[in-house]
Amino acid sequence: MKILLATLALTIACNMLSAQVSRVDVQGSYQRPNIILFLVDDMGWMDTSQPFGDSVMPLNKRFHTPNMERMAKEGLLFHQAYANPVCTPTRTTLISGMSAARTHITNWTSITPNQATDYKDDQLEAPHWNVSGFSNAAEPNTYLCKMPLPQLLKDAGYFTIHVGKAHWGSLGTQGSDPTNLGFVVNIAGSSLGHPQSYYGEQNFGNMPGKTTFNAVPDLQAFYGKETFLTQALTQKAMAAMQYPIDNHQPFFLYLGHYAVHLPIQPDKRFLDKYLAAGLDSTEANYATLIEGMDESLGQIMQFLKEKGIEKNTVVIFMSDNGGLANAGRGGVRNTQNAPLRAGKGSPYEGGVRIPMMVKWPGVVPAGVQTNNYVSAEDFFPTVLDIAGIKSTGAVDGSSYLPVMKNPAVKIKDRPLLFHYPNRWTTNEDEGYAWSSGMRFGKWKIIYLMKQQKLELYNLEEDLGEKHDLSLSNPEQLTALARMWTFVLKQRGAQMPVWKNTGKSVAWPDELIK
Amino acid sequence: MKILLATLALTIACNMLSAQVSRVDVQGSYQRPNIILFLVDDMGWMDTSQPFGDSVMPLNKRFHTPNMERMAKEGLLFHQAYANPVCTPTRTTLISGMSAARTHITNWTSITPNQATDYKDDQLEAPHWNVSGFSNAAEPNTYLCKMPLPQLLKDAGYFTIHVGKAHWGSLGTQGSDPTNLGFVVNIAGSSLGHPQSYYGEQNFGNMPGKTTFNAVPDLQAFYGKETFLTQALTQKAMAAMQYPIDNHQPFFLYLGHYAVHLPIQPDKRFLDKYLAAGLDSTEANYATLIEGMDESLGQIMQFLKEKGIEKNTVVIFMSDNGGLANAGRGGVRNTQNAPLRAGKGSPYEGGVRIPMMVKWPGVVPAGVQTNNYVSAEDFFPTVLDIAGIKSTGAVDGSSYLPVMKNPAVKIKDRPLLFHYPNRWTTNEDEGYAWSSGMRFGKWKIIYLMKQQKLELYNLEEDLGEKHDLSLSNPEQLTALARMWTFVLKQRGAQMPVWKNTGKSVAWPDELIK
Repeated sequence: MKILLATLALTIACNMLSAQVSRVDVQGSYQRPNIILFLVDDMGWMDTSQPFGDSVMPLNKRFHTPNMERMAKEGLLFHQAYANPVCTPTRTTLISGMSAARTHITNWTSITPNQATDYKDDQLEAPHWNVSGFSNAAEPNTYLCKMPLPQLLKDAGYFTIHVGKAHWGSLGTQGSDPTNLGFVVNIAGSSLGHPQSYYGEQNFGNMPGKTTFNAVPDLQAFYGKETFLTQALTQKAMAAMQYPIDNHQPFFLYLGHYAVHLPIQPDKRFLDKYLAAGLDSTEANYATLIEGMDESLGQIMQFLKEKGIEKNTVVIFMSDNGGLANAGRGGVRNTQNAPLRAGKGSPYEGGVRIPMMVKWPGVVPAGVQTNNYVSAEDFFPTVLDIAGIKSTGAVDGSSYLPVMKNPAVKIKDRPLLFHYPNRWTTNEDEGYAWSSGMRFGKWKIIYLMKQQKLELYNLEEDLGEKHDLSLSNPEQLTALARMWTFVLKQRGAQMPVWKNTGKSVAWPDELIK
Repeated sequence: MKILLATLALTIACNMLSAQVSRVDVQGSYQRPNIILFLVDDMGWMDTSQPFGDSVMPLNKRFHTPNMERMAKEGLLFHQAYANPVCTPTRTTLISGMSAARTHITNWTSITPNQATDYKDDQLEAPHWNVSGFSNAAEPNTYLCKMPLPQLLKDAGYFTIHVGKAHWGSLGTQGSDPTNLGFVVNIAGSSLGHPQSYYGEQNFGNMPGKTTFNAVPDLQAFYGKETFLTQALTQKAMAAMQYPIDNHQPFFLYLGHYAVHLPIQPDKRFLDKYLAAGLDSTEANYATLIEGMDESLGQIMQFLKEKGIEKNTVVIFMSDNGGLANAGRGGVRNTQNAPLRAGKGSPYEGGVRIPMMVKWPGVVPAGVQTNNYVSAEDFFPTVLDIAGIKSTGAVDGSSYLPVMKNPAVKIKDRPLLFHYPNRWTTNEDEGYAWSSGMRFGKWKIIYLMKQQKLELYNLEEDLGEKHDLSLSNPEQLTALARMWTFVLKQRGAQMPVWKNTGKSVAWPDELIK
């Protein structure tokens, strides 16, 4: 009975928002706005001087992101936006509308096809996830999606531009080339998950004899020049937007910055002040990647203004997962997203909570903030909603356009999944291996599979997930575990397998005594 | 007086054709056709089963190009079309409308900027030519062209697509990126002049540790697959055309095949029959490159038919210079373009006469051939003419659209230049170093600078340029040398410099006693 109730509540919650959304027929007279998805790689919730929490916290004083501050003043800031713990699952969710639990792209994809990126483990084996990523053709080890977001937008008359990091599928798959997924123009997007080099002086990695698969393509005009990758991409993005602007055509720009992913190479223009502030060299370098990305945001906003299209352009700012807080960063491990716990690769807040804002002058109120929680799954239906396109097929999220138009709208509680049945790194602490998470209302439930342990946190009172309430709140734990299991099964989620028995790891509700 | 007369005749000849062309205002109701420039690299005049001479010659029996035969049946074939002796000069002429003598891009451009590709010589020094190629920005060692052909077409409403080899400028210059020159979409075009590999199995050269600057970009979806480069480019070209087709927009497709340039790697699907025919392995491999290119032509024509746009699409087939007949080919040196003399790199007919056809059902008569001689300079004004765009600024050629519409039209005689004041290879015979050439009427005049020698040929009677008439026709030689010098100077042509004196090599007319 309890299961039934929870299920019912869930179903209602899931349908609630969709019902509120008044979609606009694409054939109608609706003037479709341009849409820019400004996606930062590996940027943490705290990596900015613009607070995304309810107060200025210590890390906010470390970074300089004046353009993010400006965007927050001119748009709507989401305190509680979420992505997946790592990048490919978020990126494939963004253009499919489907949860990683459903696409079975639960880990990042290798550049080379048919090659799992999971770390080996003595006890657990990863499920047969789609290791080659996302494709628009039936190909081995890929998730087949015939109607990705850019394809829908293009078919509806949008001029679709991809600039920067794609990372949707491995080399040799259709998904490795953004033009196969509905982008008319692709610049610098392929299978690579990070750049070989951020430096024009190093041709972004294209150095005969030293070139790896991570060398960034298509930026040959900047070779040998002192142009940082973030700047090169920004310039190419602005040049590419000129065509639809000249042709009075609505455009969709997916600007996926390679920044601020490893390698943490400094943008030297910004370095001195961070060193002077006492940061260790890695963190100072990291801060320059952040500031260079912020500069790009400012230039894009300025470009829209100069072209006279600011009012008819929606800018969505987001990151693809939490900030790196494991190996690779400076400072003390697992402090880089403080007060959030852990970081990229983990279902704890540090791994999944992302900086997120939207700006649409005249439609979205300026300088407003919302506590509505949204997930990576919500961007697909939202973008379609903005474009006035009726989506066909199932999507796992809901449009947050009503909140954009009226921030007083309260999105009904619904479960958000952070399902990661893989081992990301050698480290196994802090949810970095074999983990899953769900947010529902104020609650966050974590499943550490190897330990066969459920944890329960009240995020309203415990943002840092320090106080596990699973023992003191057994009824809540039970209800959430059942809802969670239902949603995981509904989406066809995979679980790892115990090597000694060959059996799948238990579902969350099976852990309830 | 003689000089004056020649000059006058020349000026009249140059203006004659332009005056005949009835241009259509782009603002008018003219339905602009799609334009496809199908450009083959290094394909010789004889590298086809479709004769471009007046009879079937021995080499025509070597090759299998059924789609070229079909195109000849459906369009207009030019017996006497010309390009420059090497590729970059032709390619930069195609998109600038200007003679290589004027742009000072007289040799092929290096991938790395500011690096001349000329071979050193004891006696002569190359002039300061634009070694970094063509650019839309003022950059060192480049020819500045603000209004290249794709830019003009784009500005007039054409959707401009570049697929394949560009080779307009060195890495690090604006000209290295086709999107800077007016192409909305660029696939696989950069500074490289030949592919590192034709094989998808070798990722077209993109193999970490082995990747050179010649690795072909943007074809990642074919990596590891048995897709030959020519096929990959054809598939990408067809996919790219779909966007303007869906949007009822006229398009310009510049499909620059990397084939049939070195490396002569066999397309194994076609190899057996050429080996069985007794060709040596290099020539058999070469024949497969030709046949693969021909297959592409057939697929493009079939695509146009299937999409219902055959009648509104102009296809122009051409090569960028004569066939390679120097080192690198199989067989006996300098026989590969027989009966034409020499090959790529030389101003003799084998180096500059190219296979050329146009097809435009309903406008261009089918199965017709013309003896009108045309040059690389004529394509720019012709394409603009087809698109109904009034060209501003000087161009060195004239539109041959009148001939396309009515092959009975006779283009007035005018001088065509093949100016090559550089040393291409170690070989110095057959015009492969320090040479220049001019065609006027039936006459061909050759200048071998190091030898300080002029040669004169009557192409009507001596297609193979075997009988030098310079001694027996001194008056004709004098008149042509004067006209030639006038045109060279008018276009600002450069000459090499004698190392021992520091003086420029004499102009052709200075050789006349």
